[in-house]
Amino acid sequence: MITDRLIELIKLKKNPTVVGLDPKLEFIPNYLLNEAKQKHEDIYCAAADAIFKFNCCLIDKLHDIIPAVKPQIAFYEQYGAPGIEAYINTLRYVKSKGLITIGDVKRGDIASTAEAYADAHLGFVLGAPVFDSDFATINPYLGFDSVSPFINACKKYDKGIFVLVKTSNPGAGDLQDINTDEGKVYEIVGRKVCEWGADSIGKNGYSRVCAVAGATYPHQIKKLRNEMPSTFFLVPGYGAQGGTSADVKQAFDAKGSGALINNSRGIIAAYLLPQYKKKYNEKEFADAAREAAVAMRDDIADGINA
Amino acid sequence: MITDRLIELIKLKKNPTVVGLDPKLEFIPNYLLNEAKQKHEDIYCAAADAIFKFNCCLIDKLHDIIPAVKPQIAFYEQYGAPGIEAYINTLRYVKSKGLITIGDVKRGDIASTAEAYADAHLGFVLGAPVFDSDFATINPYLGFDSVSPFINACKKYDKGIFVLVKTSNPGAGDLQDINTDEGKVYEIVGRKVCEWGADSIGKNGYSRVCAVAGATYPHQIKKLRNEMPSTFFLVPGYGAQGGTSADVKQAFDAKGSGALINNSRGIIAAYLLPQYKKKYNEKEFADAAREAAVAMRDDIADGINA
Repeated sequence: MITDRLIELIKLKKNPTVVGLDPKLEFIPNYLLNEAKQKHEDIYCAAADAIFKFNCCLIDKLHDIIPAVKPQIAFYEQYGAPGIEAYINTLRYVKSKGLITIGDVKRGDIASTAEAYADAHLGFVLGAPVFDSDFATINPYLGFDSVSPFINACKKYDKGIFVLVKTSNPGAGDLQDINTDEGKVYEIVGRKVCEWGADSIGKNGYSRVCAVAGATYPHQIKKLRNEMPSTFFLVPGYGAQGGTSADVKQAFDAKGSGALINNSRGIIAAYLLPQYKKKYNEKEFADAAREAAVAMRDDIADGINA
Repeated sequence: MITDRLIELIKLKKNPTVVGLDPKLEFIPNYLLNEAKQKHEDIYCAAADAIFKFNCCLIDKLHDIIPAVKPQIAFYEQYGAPGIEAYINTLRYVKSKGLITIGDVKRGDIASTAEAYADAHLGFVLGAPVFDSDFATINPYLGFDSVSPFINACKKYDKGIFVLVKTSNPGAGDLQDINTDEGKVYEIVGRKVCEWGADSIGKNGYSRVCAVAGATYPHQIKKLRNEMPSTFFLVPGYGAQGGTSADVKQAFDAKGSGALINNSRGIIAAYLLPQYKKKYNEKEFADAAREAAVAMRDDIADGINA
């Protein structure tokens, strides 16, 4: 079962970190951009080529120490068809290295449309996989009949989803924190996630229907951890968005399992950060990423053990 | 201003209908699928080619009687890069005929990611337009800071958005109808939409920040129409989903303006419906679509005047 595979990879690598592959062009070293521009006349083909090379270099340097990666599709989709090609190739390359892939797509639509998304991102279309990520992130605003096609695809193809419960951004509370008679809106969504996942709990105690819970709201995560004992968490917001190891600690269970902490620019663009800039030049961006990933792994372990 | 242009096109054609280009393969005539299969070895390239031809035939037969089209990106994205190419080419073709395009993408993400989506769908990336739709549909679950990059792009590029307020699907109420001290969740979102749009109201009285309000919930639409006098509505749910002309009437203002009613399969796949099947063969699918579009236009006019 996919959530078991994820948990076992986390244990094996002793690292509950997922690297967010959000390849903004400002993160990509000039030498890679220039190489790509010389090869391609079309600017989007050049961008997509540079992105894919950037991602491959990162994966080559990181794959033995991390369990999973999470490409954010917006940073590929913005280059049209060549960008989507780079997204697919990235997922394939990551998979070839034995890592778990989380497609950060935040899709959500009425059932017949959600089926098309579910087949594309988690299943098969015309007999072949399209994006073929192991997990996808899902937006629940359209209601529970909009999520069920994704759950059906998860069961059919042994995949998983992370439903947005409490996101990490400053405005997350605008809708998610609205008070109701049955608790806050995000708590109602959280309870639904538990319900949907109840019949697909793996041998490690966690379901394939998982939740997004932001590191920037540690009190809420702590509460969710207690109320959702069989729900695995994807935790964005560590690092650049302000979440600390003490914050993310709240997402783990008593055994130190049950959560995966995302970091994007803090790892993939580490070579641009003051603490790594002197040590690494732009051609060593993947070495800087590795050092940052090790530092994050150790920081989270310290947080859990504190 | 884009909302004015849309309203003026609706007046000119005397038709507040938007045709949903949701090209499921089951809607596409066999002769088009077979032609595409003979031309392309890759199944996704064949599907994308058939979809684009299908759309072009429809637009050729419909462009003089409709003001706008709304492609649902899921039915293109599901074929990977060739599908995205067909989506872009469809938007371009529609634009070349002088119609308004609504990208039904329902995107929503944290601000830095929402910027990438906004640039791609409504603006420019690396100096060029990517999808270049006139409007995009937006999911507000991540909160108001996730919507503002889209509003910024709207102002910069003279575009518009339709924020999901009350969707048309059976489960729409699961989150949207939750009761709070300040009304239902969708009413809170509706009030926010009014706020965001207050400084961009055009000469026809409607803002570029618009709302989705489903025809399947006529009482709620009626209430929203009263509470949101400067918000233009996109109304899904007419036809196959069960909404009638009496239902959609509630979305219009006293002058019969302020709303655009969507129909997808009821028009693009009309040739498969019992009432058109005898009259039109599969090669005449676009003629059937035109007859269905005229019937819908007249049905809505009857509803408004009733």
